[in-house]
Amino acid sequence: MRYELYYQPSIQGRGEFVRLPLEDAGADYIDVARDPNFGRPGIMKFLEDPSLEHPPFAPPFLKAGKVLISQTANILQFLAPRLGLVPKSEASRLWVHQLQLTVSDWLVEAHDAHHPIGGAFYYEDQKPESKRRAAHFTAERLPKFLGYFERVLGRERGGWLLGKTFSYSDLSLFQMIAGLRYAFPRAMERLEPKYPRSVALQSRVASRPRIAAYLASKRRIAFNQHGIFRHYPELDV
Amino acid sequence: MRYELYYQPSIQGRGEFVRLPLEDAGADYIDVARDPNFGRPGIMKFLEDPSLEHPPFAPPFLKAGKVLISQTANILQFLAPRLGLVPKSEASRLWVHQLQLTVSDWLVEAHDAHHPIGGAFYYEDQKPESKRRAAHFTAERLPKFLGYFERVLGRERGGWLLGKTFSYSDLSLFQMIAGLRYAFPRAMERLEPKYPRSVALQSRVASRPRIAAYLASKRRIAFNQHGIFRHYPELDV
Repeated sequence: MRYELYYQPSIQGRGEFVRLPLEDAGADYIDVARDPNFGRPGIMKFLEDPSLEHPPFAPPFLKAGKVLISQTANILQFLAPRLGLVPKSEASRLWVHQLQLTVSDWLVEAHDAHHPIGGAFYYEDQKPESKRRAAHFTAERLPKFLGYFERVLGRERGGWLLGKTFSYSDLSLFQMIAGLRYAFPRAMERLEPKYPRSVALQSRVASRPRIAAYLASKRRIAFNQHGIFRHYPELDV
Repeated sequence: MRYELYYQPSIQGRGEFVRLPLEDAGADYIDVARDPNFGRPGIMKFLEDPSLEHPPFAPPFLKAGKVLISQTANILQFLAPRLGLVPKSEASRLWVHQLQLTVSDWLVEAHDAHHPIGGAFYYEDQKPESKRRAAHFTAERLPKFLGYFERVLGRERGGWLLGKTFSYSDLSLFQMIAGLRYAFPRAMERLEPKYPRSVALQSRVASRPRIAAYLASKRRIAFNQHGIFRHYPELDV
């Protein structure tokens, strides 16, 4: 199966949470908008085509044969069993999905730290609001989310969120910490010593052979000021 | 199976998206925090108990025998097959879940219209920011979300989001429209004529016998100024 990922070509964004499991599993996939053989894919076609059976609300979306699926956490839920990145039991799958949905909530808050008024306005047009929201985010929300995942990691030996079993939620926690380090280096430097298990997980994911190769490749888009994680020094106090 | 729902007792909030399918299916459930036989349940116990196998990040959560599950969309995904509120095929379930996750995104934006800086501050302490965000929400985001669901309803005859098959996503769309009418009556009055299928779905859900009985009962908490949907006239222009 060759998967087709549709997402913006110039940012990691939500698409990265799908790229990571595809890369970790060594899956055959095309990042359509970035592939020179396919060119810009007309993501808009999918957003407007009235004949689609399951129209997406927004990117990312994934094509797997005839299946078209969107919403990041839903894509992961579909992909993970096919890539061997989640256990078989319903209880385990619901639990990993629950962790992923908590990552999704966290990600929205990381974005809204620099866009509290909405995506339609430039950051420069919501700077005072961003300062207030980012201060709240780094002082209260960041420790709350990190503390939750640290607690989950403390329940079982093995170092992964499911203990000894690696799952896509580990890749997502890796990506959150990577993004937060880019966006809020000072806050993260201060906080990280309190969350040693999460920090260790992050390094361990980064050194998985396929992930290490991916991170060193051109396929990994660098963090930048157009993505979900953005570094504005004035928001990182 | 007697389900136990854990959620704040004084608001509809996210818990309402779980109450509605339980009510529509006539399921045996206890709204623990509101049940005089059980009293305040110590939701905090679940948020702090280090021995829990699958600790929730936040309410709502559901107990079903030994299963403890959280994240609204995840609870629905677990419950719906047991309540007969989703078809059997994987493709249909992923599609309904995709719709539900889009409702989840919409709900966050409805909340953030009155709390753009964060839940830790009173509305009164973020009024100017709320005015900007709510104006953007009613002018752009509300039509975008309504337009999406209207488009989905237009794909197939039958009047439900899956066409002729009723599913939990219909209950969620009902709840969104009900809440938005409470919070933004003027904006909704202006917008609703453009989305006749969604409006018709809303009425049709409201007149389902068990839902009608529920809405008329004391079990349905009234919308109020502590919930996710809040009516501030100055935000509804």
